[in-house]
Amino acid sequence: MKDFHDLADFQADEINALLELAGRLESSPEPHALAGKVLALLFLSPSLRTLASFQAAMTRLGGGSFVISPNMSIHGLETRPGIVMDGMAAEHIREAVPVIASYADAIGIRAFAERESLEADLTDKEFNSMRELCEIPRINMESAINHPCQSLADWKTMDDLGVPRSGGKFVLSWAYHPRALPLAVPAATVHMAAMRGMDVSVLRPEGFELPDAIMQKAAAAAEKSGGSVVETSDHDAALEGANIIYAKSWSSTKHYGNRPADEEFRRGLDDWCVDEPWFEKAHDDCRFMHCLPVRRGVVVADRILDGPRSIVIQEARNRMYAQMAVLHQMLVNS
Amino acid sequence: MKDFHDLADFQADEINALLELAGRLESSPEPHALAGKVLALLFLSPSLRTLASFQAAMTRLGGGSFVISPNMSIHGLETRPGIVMDGMAAEHIREAVPVIASYADAIGIRAFAERESLEADLTDKEFNSMRELCEIPRINMESAINHPCQSLADWKTMDDLGVPRSGGKFVLSWAYHPRALPLAVPAATVHMAAMRGMDVSVLRPEGFELPDAIMQKAAAAAEKSGGSVVETSDHDAALEGANIIYAKSWSSTKHYGNRPADEEFRRGLDDWCVDEPWFEKAHDDCRFMHCLPVRRGVVVADRILDGPRSIVIQEARNRMYAQMAVLHQMLVNS
Amino acid sequence: MKDFHDLADFQADEINALLELAGRLESSPEPHALAGKVLALLFLSPSLRTLASFQAAMTRLGGGSFVISPNMSIHGLETRPGIVMDGMAAEHIREAVPVIASYADAIGIRAFAERESLEADLTDKEFNSMRELCEIPRINMESAINHPCQSLADWKTMDDLGVPRSGGKFVLSWAYHPRALPLAVPAATVHMAAMRGMDVSVLRPEGFELPDAIMQKAAAAAEKSGGSVVETSDHDAALEGANIIYAKSWSSTKHYGNRPADEEFRRGLDDWCVDEPWFEKAHDDCRFMHCLPVRRGVVVADRILDGPRSIVIQEARNRMYAQMAVLHQMLVNS
Repeated sequence: MKDFHDLADFQADEINALLELAGRLESSPEPHALAGKVLALLFLSPSLRTLASFQAAMTRLGGGSFVISPNMSIHGLETRPGIVMDGMAAEHIREAVPVIASYADAIGIRAFAERESLEADLTDKEFNSMRELCEIPRINMESAINHPCQSLADWKTMDDLGVPRSGGKFVLSWAYHPRALPLAVPAATVHMAAMRGMDVSVLRPEGFELPDAIMQKAAAAAEKSGGSVVETSDHDAALEGANIIYAKSWSSTKHYGNRPADEEFRRGLDDWCVDEPWFEKAHDDCRFMHCLPVRRGVVVADRILDGPRSIVIQEARNRMYAQMAVLHQMLVNS
Repeated sequence: MKDFHDLADFQADEINALLELAGRLESSPEPHALAGKVLALLFLSPSLRTLASFQAAMTRLGGGSFVISPNMSIHGLETRPGIVMDGMAAEHIREAVPVIASYADAIGIRAFAERESLEADLTDKEFNSMRELCEIPRINMESAINHPCQSLADWKTMDDLGVPRSGGKFVLSWAYHPRALPLAVPAATVHMAAMRGMDVSVLRPEGFELPDAIMQKAAAAAEKSGGSVVETSDHDAALEGANIIYAKSWSSTKHYGNRPADEEFRRGLDDWCVDEPWFEKAHDDCRFMHCLPVRRGVVVADRILDGPRSIVIQEARNRMYAQMAVLHQMLVNS
Repeated sequence: MKDFHDLADFQADEINALLELAGRLESSPEPHALAGKVLALLFLSPSLRTLASFQAAMTRLGGGSFVISPNMSIHGLETRPGIVMDGMAAEHIREAVPVIASYADAIGIRAFAERESLEADLTDKEFNSMRELCEIPRINMESAINHPCQSLADWKTMDDLGVPRSGGKFVLSWAYHPRALPLAVPAATVHMAAMRGMDVSVLRPEGFELPDAIMQKAAAAAEKSGGSVVETSDHDAALEGANIIYAKSWSSTKHYGNRPADEEFRRGLDDWCVDEPWFEKAHDDCRFMHCLPVRRGVVVADRILDGPRSIVIQEARNRMYAQMAVLHQMLVNS
């Protein structure tokens, strides 16, 4: 495997092989598989789960990692092409990224959405400008529009718990949050659930439709897998018979990149907090999922998070095993 | 070993086995003992020795570690139960701590005293609220009222140098410091020296008595070990025949949690700086101990720290070996 | 090898042995050579390449490292001898450095120039005051006046590309930069190129002469190796026939330590930006070198950095292999 940017780059059987490998590494450790191998971790925005789970993944496979964040560099890194660097920044990403990559066997890059233009973010412009500077295998540790490590972990978590693929109902529900958040997780999640063969409902208020490009990509995955994708603002229709309620807040498409307008627009939507009533018409075994971090009492009620439906800790834990599988495929015998 | 919270949780022979193991790992490295094993290091307050010594300990045993401090998380971590998280904090410790633990085979937690209430701190409320969120083996890397890694290292240091257990005289002396410091080290130290079978004198100005709960715990340990514990403000009585003078500053009990009042109260006590005269009536081989960091010329004179009596670097170095023994017992064959 | 402070401490055949070992470790990994070994990395100023390349080097050899920077310590570290520490600093380097070293098998120290006095910086006062506190093998990760890891990497890079030693022409050229920078890299570079047996020209504007002590040390190396060293402000004479143009900005000697005066003095020198015309009379295969970070459009034109002459990424990559060779010689069988 050369890169891990997007689940859509893989065939279903390749994903199944990764999931099987993740499960095998969970039950049968390979503490020498990556002896002497190095993973570079480049964070352009803060992180807790990703930082910890990748470092732990490399250690469990016998290798190591180093962490670079721009605040380690004096006055940050310059990203604009062709600029005369007579200001504060002392280094350009055109040197920094290839140098960091030159010390490593693979590199993970976290590059958040710039949220200035929906079109630019939908093409993952910032992430792609980084990854093109590296020749080693690259891992998307969350970009403007994708989060394949989270999606692979979520897929494994549902498999571990026997949530049906074909015929399973997956509800991705928008939830309230005081701030406009990126589209990375909802975009990756709707595609993952569709690719897994599930019947996916995206439940959101008017004005929070997922962009067409995201819905079309998910629909294409559903067509291949035998799943389906619909979008609705009708709670009852969406939640009836659900096997999974996956909560996540995201920016409004309408006011994308305009934070004050978005925050004004979402005012009054604070009843979009997942609580017991959401599960009334759901499947008896319906589970609650969230990628974390999550705001208690805002996105979801304490009693859901602390109750038996919640599988958020398992999702987070599976980040490590999913990433171990990716690293193993990339780096063993490399 | 499931947890390492407090030396008082162990029998004397268990401590002896740990010390023996620490000595063996010092002389006979085991660089593959913990291959593929991961230690999570969670710091709720800054650290230098603890950070470095735990990372080095895991490397020497062939495993690895990762470090989490709350400033890595956007706007910090929420700790209050039942709160509606519509403010700055984006994550609650009820998710963050179990997630961090889910990547690791053991977790070290540093949780300083809140110093709002002596009663709360004496029960190690903050540390306990953290550790209860983890199911893996847990290590106390300093809490409001304990510091078992320091104590095990100090015990080993005295053993290494032949300081007598039974019949040895251990003086824990308060020292001046411009600020009110926690009770963790004095509480752990008086108990450790008593458990080691020594005759312990706590020397401190009036108003800096150690809380009853701390003294009673030490007295109970002394009763088992054949040692003794007294508290005094009489320098001559305390220091006569001492094998060890262990200096440490701490908050006044009287003004606990009230920093301005404490700082006012300690004014004029700046002659509590350990210097040559303190050793005049001590045992010829009397050693100077301190857990570090130490303020030169304030807590202790340069000539003591730089002279042959000082064993502060050995104490710090033994942190690593003591912790290697704890990790080895926790994680080998786990 | 006990220490790696300065290439001048080694004979030519010792450097050749290090370079050969670096090349061997590049082509034939030894992922278990340093199992259980620990490198301490002490940074008194920020770093990206050094931080990443040393961590990667230890991982590739099967060992590990930990990083300490003074901002990890509450209120920083005190460095002044004999001071009464009743201010902000809670720890003195006289404890901090030996403690850090006590956890490690070797220590790397980065200590920048104080730039208060040229005389003090020329004796590497700050670096030496740190290293004298450690008894384990020590590596200079850049000091006021030296950067031996960079120089060894640069030497290897020229060897890798077949740049001639004897008879090769090496131009170390001053370049414009808005701020006064240290002398470490130019001092190390002129000495390295001379020791390698090359004919070295130091090209710089009037007032930016390298201090006598630096030039004399380089001249002594040239005498041994059969190379030569001259200093000039004549572009044509310097650049004619050059095999290497190595750009670097540095402080004026005249206004050393006086930042406003230096910045005033360098105004108008912004045409010292390496660009195509600099290569007109150079050797056809003339390469561009720089230690990084580099300001694009200020020190060097984009078309040079992005063109085939630039070998800056190879230099940075060779930091890792050069350092692996040093660590291997220091720590295998230690």
